Amino acid sequence: MTAVTPDVFARLDSYVEKVRPEFEEKFAALVEIPTISMDPEHQADMPRGANLAAELMREAGASEVDVIPTDGNPVILGKFITDPSHPTVTIYNHMDVQPAQEPEWTREPFKFDKQGDRYFGRGTTDDKGPGMTALYGARYAIENGIPININLLWEMEEEIGSPSFDKFLKANAARAACDSIIVSDTEWIARGCPAIPYGLRGVQGLTVHLETAATDVHSGTAGGAARNPIAELGALVNDCMDVKTGRVKIPGFYKDVVPPTKKEIDSFLKSGFTVKHFKQALGLKKMRTEKAPEVLKRIFAMPTFEIHGLVGGYTGPGVKTVIPPRAELKITMRLVPKQKAEKIFKLVSKFIKSKIKDVVIKKEGSLEAYLGPFSGPLADAGRRAMKFAFGKDPAFTREGGSIGAVVTMEKYLKAPILFLGLSLPEHGYHAPNENFDWEQASGGIKMFAKYFDEISRMPRKK
Amino acid sequence: MTAVTPDVFARLDSYVEKVRPEFEEKFAALVEIPTISMDPEHQADMPRGANLAAELMREAGASEVDVIPTDGNPVILGKFITDPSHPTVTIYNHMDVQPAQEPEWTREPFKFDKQGDRYFGRGTTDDKGPGMTALYGARYAIENGIPININLLWEMEEEIGSPSFDKFLKANAARAACDSIIVSDTEWIARGCPAIPYGLRGVQGLTVHLETAATDVHSGTAGGAARNPIAELGALVNDCMDVKTGRVKIPGFYKDVVPPTKKEIDSFLKSGFTVKHFKQALGLKKMRTEKAPEVLKRIFAMPTFEIHGLVGGYTGPGVKTVIPPRAELKITMRLVPKQKAEKIFKLVSKFIKSKIKDVVIKKEGSLEAYLGPFSGPLADAGRRAMKFAFGKDPAFTREGGSIGAVVTMEKYLKAPILFLGLSLPEHGYHAPNENFDWEQASGGIKMFAKYFDEISRMPRKK
Repeated sequence: MTAVTPDVFARLDSYVEKVRPEFEEKFAALVEIPTISMDPEHQADMPRGANLAAELMREAGASEVDVIPTDGNPVILGKFITDPSHPTVTIYNHMDVQPAQEPEWTREPFKFDKQGDRYFGRGTTDDKGPGMTALYGARYAIENGIPININLLWEMEEEIGSPSFDKFLKANAARAACDSIIVSDTEWIARGCPAIPYGLRGVQGLTVHLETAATDVHSGTAGGAARNPIAELGALVNDCMDVKTGRVKIPGFYKDVVPPTKKEIDSFLKSGFTVKHFKQALGLKKMRTEKAPEVLKRIFAMPTFEIHGLVGGYTGPGVKTVIPPRAELKITMRLVPKQKAEKIFKLVSKFIKSKIKDVVIKKEGSLEAYLGPFSGPLADAGRRAMKFAFGKDPAFTREGGSIGAVVTMEKYLKAPILFLGLSLPEHGYHAPNENFDWEQASGGIKMFAKYFDEISRMPRKK
Repeated sequence: MTAVTPDVFARLDSYVEKVRPEFEEKFAALVEIPTISMDPEHQADMPRGANLAAELMREAGASEVDVIPTDGNPVILGKFITDPSHPTVTIYNHMDVQPAQEPEWTREPFKFDKQGDRYFGRGTTDDKGPGMTALYGARYAIENGIPININLLWEMEEEIGSPSFDKFLKANAARAACDSIIVSDTEWIARGCPAIPYGLRGVQGLTVHLETAATDVHSGTAGGAARNPIAELGALVNDCMDVKTGRVKIPGFYKDVVPPTKKEIDSFLKSGFTVKHFKQALGLKKMRTEKAPEVLKRIFAMPTFEIHGLVGGYTGPGVKTVIPPRAELKITMRLVPKQKAEKIFKLVSKFIKSKIKDVVIKKEGSLEAYLGPFSGPLADAGRRAMKFAFGKDPAFTREGGSIGAVVTMEKYLKAPILFLGLSLPEHGYHAPNENFDWEQASGGIKMFAKYFDEISRMPRKK
């Protein structure tokens, strides 16, 4: 496929250089509003941030911009409409940020600090920088006559799990209707190695409670005859999984799992991933496996059974010879596409009850997994856009985590979702001294422009 | 064997009735000094209590009384010497008490409250009442010419694990030398069913630490490849024991265990023990076994492997999808006679390291088990004394707990130890509204008097 508007891109490099001062100035203003969704003290900053975001969209040429109230923080929807007959793409970003109280910050987190090509400040890479990049990509597309409609959908509750987003999108599905979606809130694994994740894992949590007595009993008085709830729940872990390999032993757990193909794993490997760097970055001493293909398979595309705590008994220094009356095991499972959270919850609950009759199981939060296009026209368009902008074919990877908004958008907008993220590990997602950089921003603007052009020539969804 | 001084006991009943007002008055004074060894605020009460105890011994006719300083609280040693050629018996009690802050107290814990035959107050049954009883038994024996020397050895750090007792007794072994020992700090299982425990379990504690990362990691980012230290230590419990039965799976763990004989278990059963009452008293919902002989075997005479805590990870409400970097398993084992704490610690440590190579094991406190005479002249003397005083043959039982001072006395005094306790479950050891009663006290004075007479005619140790 060749571009129908080839001359468009002749002006792109000079456009990017020309808008840089303006990009940086507006980006700075956005970063300097501390839109910490988790912190009630910053409640007043949320509408301030939303209003500035809307203003930036209008300045960039959006024909319709709304700050839409929800039960929580507002959502900003900006539309760049060229013609109703053109395809419409929605780009999701979020304008809320993590708190920034880590003592390792060597600068004011909410003072935009430009150091050469690097931009420091909370929210620069997660996710205000990618949002600004999408905005300038959209502006370029519109100004240069690419026949596409672009919706910018900016949420302000992503960092607290998008509690209002489902209700918002259900009510505004028609307004936000589109043919395809971009989520721009993911990381590459290494600089210079573009990556397009095409799947997310889901998650299902549960807690298992066991009460065997009314109160502490002395292990001298009753030890040997009294049940020990911590020991029973500890051994339950062994019933559920092989703790050395992580393999889940619960019958039926893997029934709906489609393991990644060799082709997919080869693709994961092209992301620039190395076991050494992964271990170092996360501070892992030794892993269950240290073979790169196996690590990538397990973190991207296989389900897990994770223990987060076994609560109960004595937690002070040394030992205390008391048998506790109750204990609680905290579990979450990461799920992969085709595994349904509700089905897995029932399966696991039944298995646990077959092992210990008198446990009480409580269901915790869940999110379904997501699998987007790994191949096909949309994936190809993404590949060409990345190669065009960054000079290298992207690796198609997956994300081991879960993004609630993705599942929600799939549900209500019923459109395929492509992840075109720009962040790098050294940008410090959720970390002190968070930053973004001009290399990723300028490449990102080109990537978006090229991608808009690519998909403008695709058939619309029916 | 018949008593050589039969007329002596003709006066015993009237003696006991006659001394009652005096017994109660002095007992009250002793209880009203709050000798809480655990509470630094009561530091000044410890010498006050020791001095009163020494005064009571002198008033009862002790020929030598010393309040002997230690690195902690003093020990009181009172000697009732008749003739150096006579046998010497040492009676161990302790004059320190538990704190009394439970909201369930319906009276002042350190105000002696006489209600008919019942004496309420912290320390009444544990262990000031039995100490007073031994004192009046000794006085009777001496006043009535029983040819025996009696040492009353009253410790003031029992409730904090006797930290100074080993050093004290090592330095004072000659001064406290004796042919046999009585420990009067144990409970019967039911009123009207005298019991003589003849064994104690030992204990060995350890903590197992596992660190797999430097910091929390996100279960989306690394889940599946990262090790989970809570899961690994949980499954380790299953490697070490059958959590349903409590049976330890570590090879060699039972090697030195001598299980109780049928005769011993039959003897345990004569103690008035019922599963129903045991469960109710301790608040146990369901036990590993509910057959009385099996329960008694397990709590008195078999070793255990107990988990007191698995510390690490998230302990708040719900779940948090983080994999913790480290966890700690807290274990103690109750040990039975012939199992040596050091040997078991090495065996268990080696086994655990064979299961998880990179754990760090820390040794915690240990006490050896103790086995006293179940039969033979001393046990027979105890049986006759109990029957004489309480009208019923005692059951020979064991205690599932550990008493540090017992092992220390065996080590330095090298004399057999008999447990002649007087407390009842309804007296509330370590519980609110602790009490003692005249039935046990008056019976106890008779029991001691009779026992002194019995052993006065035994050959001395060589």
